Amino acid sequence: MKTNSSIVVKKFGGTSVGSVERIENVAERVMADQKLGQMPLIVASAMSGETNRLVKMANELDPYYRGPAYDMLLASGEQVSISLLAMALEKRGVKAVPLLAHQVGIQTDTIFSKARIVSIDNKKLLSYCSSGVIPIVAGFQGVTNGNQITTLGRGGSDTTAVAVAAALGAEQCEIYTDVPAVFSADPRLVPKARELKSISFEEMMEMASLGSKVLHFRSVEIAAKYNIKIHLRSSFEKREGTWILPEVQMLENPVVSSVTHDASTVVMKLYPVPEGVGFLSDLFTELAEKNIVVDIITQSLGDRGQRLNFSIHEEDLPQTEIIVKKHVKDASQLEIMRDMSKISVIGVGMKNHPGVAARFFQIFKAQDAKVHLVTTSDIKISAVIDKDNLKRLAEALHKEFDLDA
Amino acid sequence: MKTNSSIVVKKFGGTSVGSVERIENVAERVMADQKLGQMPLIVASAMSGETNRLVKMANELDPYYRGPAYDMLLASGEQVSISLLAMALEKRGVKAVPLLAHQVGIQTDTIFSKARIVSIDNKKLLSYCSSGVIPIVAGFQGVTNGNQITTLGRGGSDTTAVAVAAALGAEQCEIYTDVPAVFSADPRLVPKARELKSISFEEMMEMASLGSKVLHFRSVEIAAKYNIKIHLRSSFEKREGTWILPEVQMLENPVVSSVTHDASTVVMKLYPVPEGVGFLSDLFTELAEKNIVVDIITQSLGDRGQRLNFSIHEEDLPQTEIIVKKHVKDASQLEIMRDMSKISVIGVGMKNHPGVAARFFQIFKAQDAKVHLVTTSDIKISAVIDKDNLKRLAEALHKEFDLDA
Repeated sequence: MKTNSSIVVKKFGGTSVGSVERIENVAERVMADQKLGQMPLIVASAMSGETNRLVKMANELDPYYRGPAYDMLLASGEQVSISLLAMALEKRGVKAVPLLAHQVGIQTDTIFSKARIVSIDNKKLLSYCSSGVIPIVAGFQGVTNGNQITTLGRGGSDTTAVAVAAALGAEQCEIYTDVPAVFSADPRLVPKARELKSISFEEMMEMASLGSKVLHFRSVEIAAKYNIKIHLRSSFEKREGTWILPEVQMLENPVVSSVTHDASTVVMKLYPVPEGVGFLSDLFTELAEKNIVVDIITQSLGDRGQRLNFSIHEEDLPQTEIIVKKHVKDASQLEIMRDMSKISVIGVGMKNHPGVAARFFQIFKAQDAKVHLVTTSDIKISAVIDKDNLKRLAEALHKEFDLDA
Repeated sequence: MKTNSSIVVKKFGGTSVGSVERIENVAERVMADQKLGQMPLIVASAMSGETNRLVKMANELDPYYRGPAYDMLLASGEQVSISLLAMALEKRGVKAVPLLAHQVGIQTDTIFSKARIVSIDNKKLLSYCSSGVIPIVAGFQGVTNGNQITTLGRGGSDTTAVAVAAALGAEQCEIYTDVPAVFSADPRLVPKARELKSISFEEMMEMASLGSKVLHFRSVEIAAKYNIKIHLRSSFEKREGTWILPEVQMLENPVVSSVTHDASTVVMKLYPVPEGVGFLSDLFTELAEKNIVVDIITQSLGDRGQRLNFSIHEEDLPQTEIIVKKHVKDASQLEIMRDMSKISVIGVGMKNHPGVAARFFQIFKAQDAKVHLVTTSDIKISAVIDKDNLKRLAEALHKEFDLDA
């Protein structure tokens, strides 16, 4: 009797299942792993381009509607990819069963389009695994306890995969994607960026929340909570990629492990801030209700009252602008600074190495680049800068912290 | 309190929901009907082209696989169209809820790709209808009692619609399609074909089983059983189309109401038939198990033994050939006649008017056209002919039986 440590959850992203040919490759790969003694369980995203095609139709109809029908629409994409994957395995004589969220029992809350997983029923999945059938679970989707279909937000298939691994007591979760590893910086921005052999959960969470799109934040959060090793690797190559691990298992702890950026940031400047104790609380509560992530917030005193600066993602600007203008008397109190970027250095080693902030700001001085907003935690420093300076600063920081390949 | 007679099931086919614009038209139309006091319930097919797109991918992977994964794949098409329809209604302030088979409780047997509906749970649907919410049910799909997704075969959405109407005790079911009515013959073949105001269930069933694709056979069968009037009409025009009714409600009972054809027929000729009492039973049992419809069968005595001829649909030829060859000793016993068509005249009036067969065969004689196989019932006569003669014969029969517009 094999234990659950033989179960390896394998998540394949949109590009990995982007065509019939690629689906056949996935089937070959999974079949080979099964022959080596693994009990594979697949979680798949929609074929690349499919979710965009569906979103486009929905937006043509009604760009503002988000609700049950929208989630049901989007969830159809994964239904297609898991069915085709099952056929590709069956064709090879491998027993496989495609499973939708309602069939697995992936229960979520009722926040459509950004639902969170509440529980996963592992009985059915375990029984398939132990009888040699490969379950192929639709990523990105769940059901409410009223049996309505929900979706977990962009990148939600990563979360499905890690949550399924947690529910099954699996030790590792492989995330197959179109990049071979997590890099020390985005190679398109920093050509000398190098692949990381391993990185801690904490660092990966910072990277995800600071703009790196390689893994969904919540998937790493769940992995950390349930101690599930994530192995991020290419679906087109056999070699290993990056292991995302508890800090104690890390092979190396450099001071800084990566330079991360978010190219599309907007700074909202409010001055003077309306008086009254409830203003900040009312404003940020309303922004939170609309799921707008307010990033760096600073407040200081000016001649005519308080200054409030905060940064948001560019895509949230239209909604944020409407909300902020409701809360101020005069539109002239609001200044919007577009074309900003956020750049960050991340590393668990920072905890034990003072002076990282000093080296960080020396680079800005040397590059004559203005810093608009700053925030720090014990394992990262972030600054909002002019987008024009992004590449130059990223390369300089990457070099400064000994990350160049 | 309205009775169920206010519920009108409206089925929209693939072309009726073939684009976002057409989906908006459907929403407008349904909304207008609701304002007039109807309780509409929608059943929708996949957007036109979508099912073909999915079948193409499946065939690229494995043209022979038919099973649970294939049905799950195909069922995704209706999920897209019902979600978009719900959004189009919600946008107009009309409450609507898209419902998949597992959410409605459309239970079927386990014959994947050709499943039959066993039961429909009407509680949820009735409660939506009576509270002013328009249910939008995915056509073509069901679930087994093990919660696996099944599909009902091509045209199965018609069956879903009529079965839902029956389950709800509705009196009528509107089938919106891309043709304005049932015609006395296919207008592409017989330009003088005219629209029928009404036609009996019995005639419509004969038409459906004899090759007319305007309505799914089983949908008419269910309508007849539960006495549900079907109104087939165009989704692009407001005017009435054709009513499909019990014979007693018919306005007119012409001797022949339509000339129907199936352009793609194949005749299998077996001679000499292998001896032994079990041969025919074994052969036809195996064909039936593969869901191959054997149409006309004739048997006669030749010099070297029995002659057996039977006709099948062209698409079933590859599988039929394999099966027949398993049952004979020598492949030379089998002759396959391709490029055949079947032509039929149908009319409930035939029951009371002798001499229809005589007039039918006089046309063949006048046109010097060979008849390969013949079969009759009390309301139809069918003949298998050379495909080359099809158009000429269809026009001549249409004229002979006073159907020309």
